[in-house]
Amino acid sequence: MEKIQQLQQEMAAFIASADFGGQPEGLYAPVAYTVLQKGKRLRPMLCLLACDLFGGDVEAAKYPALALETAHNFTLIHDDIMDQAPLRRGMATVYKKWNTNTAILSGDAALIRAFEFVMRTPKALDTTALLVKVLREVCEGQQYDLEFEHRASVSIPEYLEMIRLKTAVLLATSLQMGAVVAGAGEEDQRHLYDFGIAHGMAFQLWDDILDCYSDVSVFGKVTGGDIVENKKTYLYLRALELAGPMDRERLLSLYSGQVPIDPQEKVAAVLALYDRLGVKQVTESAMAAYERQASACLDAVQVPEENKRHLRRYMELLSGREK
Amino acid sequence: MEKIQQLQQEMAAFIASADFGGQPEGLYAPVAYTVLQKGKRLRPMLCLLACDLFGGDVEAAKYPALALETAHNFTLIHDDIMDQAPLRRGMATVYKKWNTNTAILSGDAALIRAFEFVMRTPKALDTTALLVKVLREVCEGQQYDLEFEHRASVSIPEYLEMIRLKTAVLLATSLQMGAVVAGAGEEDQRHLYDFGIAHGMAFQLWDDILDCYSDVSVFGKVTGGDIVENKKTYLYLRALELAGPMDRERLLSLYSGQVPIDPQEKVAAVLALYDRLGVKQVTESAMAAYERQASACLDAVQVPEENKRHLRRYMELLSGREK
Repeated sequence: MEKIQQLQQEMAAFIASADFGGQPEGLYAPVAYTVLQKGKRLRPMLCLLACDLFGGDVEAAKYPALALETAHNFTLIHDDIMDQAPLRRGMATVYKKWNTNTAILSGDAALIRAFEFVMRTPKALDTTALLVKVLREVCEGQQYDLEFEHRASVSIPEYLEMIRLKTAVLLATSLQMGAVVAGAGEEDQRHLYDFGIAHGMAFQLWDDILDCYSDVSVFGKVTGGDIVENKKTYLYLRALELAGPMDRERLLSLYSGQVPIDPQEKVAAVLALYDRLGVKQVTESAMAAYERQASACLDAVQVPEENKRHLRRYMELLSGREK
Repeated sequence: MEKIQQLQQEMAAFIASADFGGQPEGLYAPVAYTVLQKGKRLRPMLCLLACDLFGGDVEAAKYPALALETAHNFTLIHDDIMDQAPLRRGMATVYKKWNTNTAILSGDAALIRAFEFVMRTPKALDTTALLVKVLREVCEGQQYDLEFEHRASVSIPEYLEMIRLKTAVLLATSLQMGAVVAGAGEEDQRHLYDFGIAHGMAFQLWDDILDCYSDVSVFGKVTGGDIVENKKTYLYLRALELAGPMDRERLLSLYSGQVPIDPQEKVAAVLALYDRLGVKQVTESAMAAYERQASACLDAVQVPEENKRHLRRYMELLSGREK
């Protein structure tokens, strides 16, 4: 536990003292504004913990870790324009606080800055190649996400592939990047990458569950936001799959936006349907399967069990199941 | 001349057969649409010619050259959103043909693709570092350009720095990248880079002149477009500098947009003022000074004069002064 806290503090200090660019201020201030917001620093932490797992030099992983955080924030800045999201982490998004042009250009600057950071390590060629690959996939995931909004039907495999690209690959790459900096072998890199994918999938399903069943007072998000916005989540797609003809028609009709209905009533109606179909349980069991996969992947990494302790513990803390 | 044509053809074929990404098509089709439009391929050509200048392997420079073209098109896709430009090279811009979200995301994809391409060379670490640096500068240039639109006054040095960042550095880096691939020494790289900067500055001033004095039937652009849009060009800024108090006030008033005036009358009035102040001649002499600088930089490159023939010739062709 001390190890995790120590790395958290070191990474927080490293990010706080990082140079996100000077002049013109109009270009770089939005980058610093976004990256310096409070956050879990999940991706940097995965990178450092993976490096530590293989006994690597955590110092050498800090710039790649910063690159991952900066790249993640690039995606947020641009996604918030596309999703017209006014708030992020309780703060105005860049496109709202400044304007769309500033958000486009400072998002670009954040992406380019991420490349500057990722090259500051002895393994620059490998870390840069990883960053290029993952950013490409994240953009592909975002494109699928945008397309799914307007598609009449989305299959479960399509949804899973979308969240793999949009969310899981960046977590997996964060782990792999730490492993690369530590000089881990390719097989171990792959196991750790797969561990990240499986956890990323589980996290996203958990996110879909929380949106429907979380306590507003704890999570600060209104329950059912996804339902109000007609988001095709895992729960929604599973419900469609499990429903009989009448329930299916009712769910499609509630999501069609064609029947005027009070948002709260709509959420209640959809949740009642989910409950009747046992969608929450199905999603939880899919999550559990991903977590078992993740566990098997970490088991396969060829380092002493002792070394895996911190990463295992960190994942438990993240999933809110501290023991 | 045969050499130039040969490289033009090889590069055109290389770009035409390049893979700009497959699925999702909605993400990559706009990238291919933009990069595959007809164009001079100026940046790739500078890269290949610089590589050839040092007797390098032109094959090894083709992916970096493609990266430069793809990166250039990334800037166009995003700039066209910011400038709300409906047309580019006579074709609908991405944000017009598709929409803003598509233009943001496929611009990002083009940028990321450029990094994939630039790494496909034995000198990947160096070429990637060059691409990172130049993209950062180009974004800074675009930010200054956006800011200058809303600024009451812009100085000549500020304007020159903006066009250096927005235009000249990418040309200079294209040359340097070819030199790097060929294994040229740092001093020669710098001379060639400076040669590119000086030519880039001259090109931009030439562009400013053309906008005011070109023949519509030859260039296909309406004369005075910059004036209609109140663009603070080199000619405008020099005119403000050279004007007496009354002319200055008149020019500011014409550019203020506060007095309603027919666009054609406005162009005529501004051009009459430019003529009286000799602004065209002043700009031409600034251009000539940059060209002399460029020539001196190329002279300083330590390769036989014979090797410089093609690059010199190419620059003459570009500036429309074939001998």
